Amino acid sequence: MAPKEPRYSYLGPVGTFTWEALGQVSGAEKGEWVSVNNVGEALENVLHDRSEYAMIAIENSIEGGVSATQDALALAPSLRIVGEYLVPVRFVLATKPGTPLDSVTTVAAHAVAYAQCRTWLEKNLPRHSHVPARSNVHAAQSMSDDGLADAAIAPPGITQHADVTVVAENIGDNPNAQTRFVLVQKGGLPPERTGADKTSIIAELPDDAPGRLLEMLEQFATRGVNMSLLESRPIGDAMGRYRFVIDLDGHIDDERVADALMGLRRFSPKLVFLGSYPRANGHRPDVAKPYSDDAFVDARAWLEALRTGSPEGA
Amino acid sequence: MAPKEPRYSYLGPVGTFTWEALGQVSGAEKGEWVSVNNVGEALENVLHDRSEYAMIAIENSIEGGVSATQDALALAPSLRIVGEYLVPVRFVLATKPGTPLDSVTTVAAHAVAYAQCRTWLEKNLPRHSHVPARSNVHAAQSMSDDGLADAAIAPPGITQHADVTVVAENIGDNPNAQTRFVLVQKGGLPPERTGADKTSIIAELPDDAPGRLLEMLEQFATRGVNMSLLESRPIGDAMGRYRFVIDLDGHIDDERVADALMGLRRFSPKLVFLGSYPRANGHRPDVAKPYSDDAFVDARAWLEALRTGSPEGA
Amino acid sequence: MAPKEPRYSYLGPVGTFTWEALGQVSGAEKGEWVSVNNVGEALENVLHDRSEYAMIAIENSIEGGVSATQDALALAPSLRIVGEYLVPVRFVLATKPGTPLDSVTTVAAHAVAYAQCRTWLEKNLPRHSHVPARSNVHAAQSMSDDGLADAAIAPPGITQHADVTVVAENIGDNPNAQTRFVLVQKGGLPPERTGADKTSIIAELPDDAPGRLLEMLEQFATRGVNMSLLESRPIGDAMGRYRFVIDLDGHIDDERVADALMGLRRFSPKLVFLGSYPRANGHRPDVAKPYSDDAFVDARAWLEALRTGSPEGA
Amino acid sequence: MAPKEPRYSYLGPVGTFTWEALGQVSGAEKGEWVSVNNVGEALENVLHDRSEYAMIAIENSIEGGVSATQDALALAPSLRIVGEYLVPVRFVLATKPGTPLDSVTTVAAHAVAYAQCRTWLEKNLPRHSHVPARSNVHAAQSMSDDGLADAAIAPPGITQHADVTVVAENIGDNPNAQTRFVLVQKGGLPPERTGADKTSIIAELPDDAPGRLLEMLEQFATRGVNMSLLESRPIGDAMGRYRFVIDLDGHIDDERVADALMGLRRFSPKLVFLGSYPRANGHRPDVAKPYSDDAFVDARAWLEALRTGSPEGA
Repeated sequence: MAPKEPRYSYLGPVGTFTWEALGQVSGAEKGEWVSVNNVGEALENVLHDRSEYAMIAIENSIEGGVSATQDALALAPSLRIVGEYLVPVRFVLATKPGTPLDSVTTVAAHAVAYAQCRTWLEKNLPRHSHVPARSNVHAAQSMSDDGLADAAIAPPGITQHADVTVVAENIGDNPNAQTRFVLVQKGGLPPERTGADKTSIIAELPDDAPGRLLEMLEQFATRGVNMSLLESRPIGDAMGRYRFVIDLDGHIDDERVADALMGLRRFSPKLVFLGSYPRANGHRPDVAKPYSDDAFVDARAWLEALRTGSPEGA
Repeated sequence: MAPKEPRYSYLGPVGTFTWEALGQVSGAEKGEWVSVNNVGEALENVLHDRSEYAMIAIENSIEGGVSATQDALALAPSLRIVGEYLVPVRFVLATKPGTPLDSVTTVAAHAVAYAQCRTWLEKNLPRHSHVPARSNVHAAQSMSDDGLADAAIAPPGITQHADVTVVAENIGDNPNAQTRFVLVQKGGLPPERTGADKTSIIAELPDDAPGRLLEMLEQFATRGVNMSLLESRPIGDAMGRYRFVIDLDGHIDDERVADALMGLRRFSPKLVFLGSYPRANGHRPDVAKPYSDDAFVDARAWLEALRTGSPEGA
Repeated sequence: MAPKEPRYSYLGPVGTFTWEALGQVSGAEKGEWVSVNNVGEALENVLHDRSEYAMIAIENSIEGGVSATQDALALAPSLRIVGEYLVPVRFVLATKPGTPLDSVTTVAAHAVAYAQCRTWLEKNLPRHSHVPARSNVHAAQSMSDDGLADAAIAPPGITQHADVTVVAENIGDNPNAQTRFVLVQKGGLPPERTGADKTSIIAELPDDAPGRLLEMLEQFATRGVNMSLLESRPIGDAMGRYRFVIDLDGHIDDERVADALMGLRRFSPKLVFLGSYPRANGHRPDVAKPYSDDAFVDARAWLEALRTGSPEGA
Repeated sequence: MAPKEPRYSYLGPVGTFTWEALGQVSGAEKGEWVSVNNVGEALENVLHDRSEYAMIAIENSIEGGVSATQDALALAPSLRIVGEYLVPVRFVLATKPGTPLDSVTTVAAHAVAYAQCRTWLEKNLPRHSHVPARSNVHAAQSMSDDGLADAAIAPPGITQHADVTVVAENIGDNPNAQTRFVLVQKGGLPPERTGADKTSIIAELPDDAPGRLLEMLEQFATRGVNMSLLESRPIGDAMGRYRFVIDLDGHIDDERVADALMGLRRFSPKLVFLGSYPRANGHRPDVAKPYSDDAFVDARAWLEALRTGSPEGA
């Protein structure tokens, strides 16, 4: 049970995209926000009861699944996703106060952010060099102190959190980029079904026989369950072995999803349930009649009547 | 409940292949055997409680499914198959006593039997004409009376049931031919699971969209359920609309079969369960681990733990 | 090459549904019409050059595929279907002149026709007995001579071909029933593609492994080829072995159909091509862009460029 | 055409894993080796004819596909993979000469290498901090100059390329880790088929309709083509849109592979062919008879005979 004032671990410091995501969580403003240095630390806090929740980035529209997050979740099956949050990803270039754009020679940035601004940098600062940083906000804050860089890639609100000058805005290559964050807790009940839900799992193929992936996908198709994400991640024990990170439309309390999960569990015992939770975009899937809860309830009653020789079976 | 001495309807008279099939039923010798003229009459007797059981031909290895039987079962969903029996199909040519083979000009035979002896007849009696008959035994018995034919195609034991001379043996085109019979009752519990069982159903596709048959077959494939028979029968309301007569390996009390039946019921509400019963040939299917009862029980427990937030779900 | 005045074999006598189908063939009125007793005789005539064409019934909307026709075609791979024709199936009850309906006790009919009028007969002539006949027209014509029956089931135009009285019309159980006939020749080129074509084949599964039928159907699905008929027929060598009679939308000169046929030939070498021919109902299938001829031509050019290192491959 | 002494771009400096991979290329010792700073630069050199070849890392057994490489290849369809090379991935910890392990506080390493040694570092240097580096060899070489770190993660042969002391060996978390490199050129013919080949492609689904991935995978399954790699990469224009990086068993000159590629091209016009090339591990796939070149040649001849009315079609 979460205490009255739950603790939330997030990739800090104040001002990061993760911090913005946490700001979307209803009721979180009353909790205690714990800034950490990386996803692993956030999840460890939850596993060891130093936090009730962790907010972590799980996917972004440019780079795809966040590998470190996916791998950490695959190995900590007691964790549960209980919510998802979308944050638009926009970048500015911040300099030490008074430094104009044309005198910038070194740019500090987290590797992911750096990759998303490459086009702008090549055009506007063709001779710059890159200084890798732990987080963009941290890079902006420490420029003046450590002198490692004279500019930093940072989120738009950076001037509230660091003494810097913004010399260029919207420097990201893709104006529609966004990052998907999830709120994670240890165990517990899934949030109640809303009708606009998502279920996340991680599955391994049972063996290397050809066609196994096809068979796995048919477990969903035969129950009318759509996938909104399918990512492969190497298991790491040998070249060519994968696990699959999958998001499904629907909730574990939807009959079709429950049936598909059981089918998948039989097909592949190495199956991790990450959670069922309301979708950030509120989209409600169209569920055809054969896959509705009613159809499942009817089929169970029909089978039961047949098995017991009851006349309804006729 | 069947009375102490149940009644069995069968296509008579004494001596037919159906009569031979009924002879294989354990305990039937104590019952009352009711000879009828066709399959429809046998099933009507059961539906209206004039017999407890009917023995009917459902498939033969030369002609395939017996259409009349399949169509009758599709329209009488309260009937249940409770056993299957295989009878080798061999034919002799019987004549009126004293008639030699080379003086035969007309041959009486049931249409199906006639079709199965065509090669022999064309070679040995190239100028004969065919007199259609209601049953082969009946044809042999009535030759002397009605004078419609001077020979009849008949089962090997015909001399016990009619005053005829056998002038040729093994005149069937295929020495391995056999017919599958099923014993049918009204409603009731399926016979107990033996581990070597068969389940028969009749299913309609939900609509005419392309790929529907593929989708139906995937309902079996994803549960590891094999088919030993798949026959199409026109529904009769329009050209190109079919129902499918299907035999599955396994019993309705096998988890994988029950799950496939429920999947099929959701996919296609027009589904008739004909019964689960011991296989005549005693063959026990190999069931791979993901489709075993254990796998289903485990998956249900796993799902339940996840839904209730119990630690076993982890 | 067909002579100036080709010969057409058909199931006679004049007035049968087959005779009606032949009347639909453009130009057939100038040819010689050869009446035969059964489908086997019609096909033999073509195989031995006694006729250029045979008109045969291949499917009806009540009874499904005509087994004898399907089996005969499976074993005569040099035959080619070159056209299809639909004939509405309607029945009347004809009696010997002067015999009223209420004095009828015996009804002559071909087995298929008899089956299609059963409901009417049970209601209106509950005590009649059935006299099997070679063809309905023949039965009507011979009633007066042989005295075997005092009524016959016959096609509506029977009074033009026999001296009978029609005592009841539309006695068939299904007012929309129709029979599909095909015109067959020996070898030769397929009729030209019209855009509204059908291709008929007979295929055997390569072996009994589970899932083979599913694999076969996927050969069509991956090329966007729809089936309008799928019937199973026992091969006859053992219980549970089938061949499949299949009608496809499209012509062998359609790229998607040709590609599917080659895929099927590799999958199952026991494949009989029965022919490509214009559809009787003139229906033109919607072919999605990936399955159009253009898509195939483009893909071949793309592959060729890649294989030869040409820049278009890029 | 490559000049007498071709130029090879690789991620330098001398001593990197990429440099080791290049050492495996037969004949490369006579060429000119061009050290570059990242994969993008290596590919640009090939595209602009500053190098004939580039050696690039494409997959590693711990982290999976190298995103930057995959994305670069997806956008440069004129590039062709002509060979693959496997390099075992082992790490040592190198310090400035004379620095013992227990006095290390800062560790320089490329992010990927750092991730692969985390377990060892947490156990042996729990209080260290990480200094991100462009390449491990570069980090080791620059330690003495820039003073940013007092240890570096480096490949085993580092002492040949830098003035450092190795204080720990085999510090990687996974002793079987390896990286797969590919040699890339611009356009040209694929290397000749060896019977142990691999074909790499990048495909986009044609649209977001459910089941599209299943349909794509069936293009391979129906031709008996196995996948040895399937990775999803976001396209980057919107959340939830992916392209798939796929390795197939076989060569574009294998009939089954060519046919699958054409099928895929029709299904999804956005298809990039990366190349067919000998497999590093020399594994020859088992090709079942229906998928052999002979089966394809036979099917084409059969179809041609049918289309032209030749008697072989029968």
